[in-house]
Amino acid sequence: MDMRSKMIRMGQEAREASRTLARTPTDLKNRALLGMADELAARKDLLIRENARDLAAAREQGLSKAMIDRLTLTEATIAGIARGLREVAALPDPTGRITSMERRPNGLLVGRMRIPLGVIGIIYESRPNVTADAASLCLKSGNAVILRGGSEAIHSNLAIGAILQEVLRDLALPQMAIQIVDTTDREAVHEMLQLEEFIDVIIPRGGEELIRTVVRDSRIPVIKHYKGVCHVFVDESADLDMAVRICMNAKTQRPGVCNAMETLLVHEAVAAAFLPKVAAELGKAGVVLRGCERTRAILSDIETATEEDWSREYLELILSVRVVRDLDEAIGHIERYGSLHTEAIVTTHYERAQRFLAEVNSSTVLVNASTRFSDGFELGLGAEIGISTTKLHAFGPMGLEELTTSKFVIYGNGQVRM
Amino acid sequence: MDMRSKMIRMGQEAREASRTLARTPTDLKNRALLGMADELAARKDLLIRENARDLAAAREQGLSKAMIDRLTLTEATIAGIARGLREVAALPDPTGRITSMERRPNGLLVGRMRIPLGVIGIIYESRPNVTADAASLCLKSGNAVILRGGSEAIHSNLAIGAILQEVLRDLALPQMAIQIVDTTDREAVHEMLQLEEFIDVIIPRGGEELIRTVVRDSRIPVIKHYKGVCHVFVDESADLDMAVRICMNAKTQRPGVCNAMETLLVHEAVAAAFLPKVAAELGKAGVVLRGCERTRAILSDIETATEEDWSREYLELILSVRVVRDLDEAIGHIERYGSLHTEAIVTTHYERAQRFLAEVNSSTVLVNASTRFSDGFELGLGAEIGISTTKLHAFGPMGLEELTTSKFVIYGNGQVRM
Repeated sequence: MDMRSKMIRMGQEAREASRTLARTPTDLKNRALLGMADELAARKDLLIRENARDLAAAREQGLSKAMIDRLTLTEATIAGIARGLREVAALPDPTGRITSMERRPNGLLVGRMRIPLGVIGIIYESRPNVTADAASLCLKSGNAVILRGGSEAIHSNLAIGAILQEVLRDLALPQMAIQIVDTTDREAVHEMLQLEEFIDVIIPRGGEELIRTVVRDSRIPVIKHYKGVCHVFVDESADLDMAVRICMNAKTQRPGVCNAMETLLVHEAVAAAFLPKVAAELGKAGVVLRGCERTRAILSDIETATEEDWSREYLELILSVRVVRDLDEAIGHIERYGSLHTEAIVTTHYERAQRFLAEVNSSTVLVNASTRFSDGFELGLGAEIGISTTKLHAFGPMGLEELTTSKFVIYGNGQVRM
Repeated sequence: MDMRSKMIRMGQEAREASRTLARTPTDLKNRALLGMADELAARKDLLIRENARDLAAAREQGLSKAMIDRLTLTEATIAGIARGLREVAALPDPTGRITSMERRPNGLLVGRMRIPLGVIGIIYESRPNVTADAASLCLKSGNAVILRGGSEAIHSNLAIGAILQEVLRDLALPQMAIQIVDTTDREAVHEMLQLEEFIDVIIPRGGEELIRTVVRDSRIPVIKHYKGVCHVFVDESADLDMAVRICMNAKTQRPGVCNAMETLLVHEAVAAAFLPKVAAELGKAGVVLRGCERTRAILSDIETATEEDWSREYLELILSVRVVRDLDEAIGHIERYGSLHTEAIVTTHYERAQRFLAEVNSSTVLVNASTRFSDGFELGLGAEIGISTTKLHAFGPMGLEELTTSKFVIYGNGQVRM
């Protein structure tokens, strides 16, 4: 069978499965999730064996140690995957909920009900734990899923997928509700992105290049975020000790993730007091600073930040620093160079706090807290399928609710339109 | 300037304007809307004169009478446009509303605030009233808009746009918040659809072909509906007089619109009693029926419905009719041939009503009411910018709220992540 026909068949089978899944009661979905957790844990030897094939190929291709770490399945990571599935089983089911119900003047009772999106396509890179994690969130929210992981993880992903499908089959649930693309051929991704009729949304998870390719190729709506150029603005009224703690956490607690701070903005009135203080702490943690001219007038031993620095997502221990005149200049900088991801202000001033929250239209805005809280679990969503920095459908961290949409349900008693 | 540069400049100016607009208080937006209503009404002679240029060209090109009717501006249609603007001014502003606010265990107060999408691109066909209507909804919801109307209406659209911009300027609002693409060159649409950086969503309004072209070309998310193949299912327990009234209304009250019924499904137990009754009424209204074999066994003088008929949106006085075994077969038919738009059941049976509402995942599902109620005004949204039959972001009729998204707003007191 050629690639197009193969992918169309996967799409059709997913669509078919999604109809059954949309009607599957919550308790049966939960039994499937718990069964999957048990089976993955019980079959850890098989998973580690299949993972070893991926690891061997990765070493042969000379993948970096970091890449190989992300790819590796151990007894502990498998236990973590199983725990994740059990946590998803414990979350409330977002589907079927009536979010409003109002009586119209003509007597019609008009309500809105959350329903699954239908079929979700996930395109991701090398971590095999995403396979089980994403599949579990889709299943819980009543969606079928087609997963296309990185070629480095193909054997691990297929082994996980086979176990998940087996559990579905044992419970008489449609096994095509979870499908893994079983080829590393890139043509498969291209064909998958044409399945407008069978896939309702594509969620790419990976580097900016992967995401740009998906957006360019796809006829299906894509929920994505390219990068996180997150800012912390230290206002003139800030508690400077708090500001240091927040900056340290935002930059160094986990520098390689999208909600880490990449640019620090400092009000000119506190620059002389704050910059040496924060630079000393950041320096101890190994952070290299790049500053604007006004920053360098205070911290003379740092490099100059170039125009490109202001929009860079370093994902490592580098931080660009700018001194700004006031809140307006800070907001202007964020609008110009930011990525709509996450921004924080540190201030004790009531009005500026409120203005920052109201006027900065990034997906997450915080007062007096670290940017690292921009995360589905931390914000109370119970789970995270990804983060969106495009405003359509979802903006910011996405949980189970974001894998649903709502339809109008209307109770009448013979109404016709005049 | 070449087309690409021209469109990029429009995009940049719209993005810039959107930032100001997002911070503009509701009362100022309302003053602008009321001012626009007054100015359009006061300048009706100018509008009719510009419209006459479009009409002359349309006649020269031999456009159909229906097309010319849709294109024509009269004193009455201009008064209608002005009334529409005043109605939008009277609607509640969807932005700035906090939809939830919860305390996390670490003390963070996590809320969600509705905010504008940013910049909206609207691509539509010949009705010039859409220009003012769509612009007003975008303005009210704090969005900048780029409007690309049909080439037949270019002079009318530009005249309306100039007046709207003038009102913005007089109130010191950014006039680039409302921009009309001033060329009929198709290349402009192509370039507009590449402005991923400057336009947040594209809403095409028009025929299926226009929409397919937009989806194929666009890098920007598109909210759309291709067509409305709406069904009414008359259950065995239906009040047959009510069923006749609902079918008549759904098919004949306005047959050329997307929420009109295109296929009637009848439970076999009532087919012999119901079909002659409804056929007589529909016949009087000029409706031509096309039936399945079981329908034709009862209504012997009608044509056979072919396989293609089941997925056709006639938009005229033709109706396909099928006799089905039960609710499951009706739902199966809707899933197979429907367009996810609007479906109704007529029944007196409690459980089947509830099952239909729960299991049919079209954007609007009704019990004992006409499909014609699937409309933003009728469902209480106060306005309608369009209808979506794709599930992402919005599903079904879209009002002002659907022109917004939500961001996370977080109040902390020094929290850092562990």
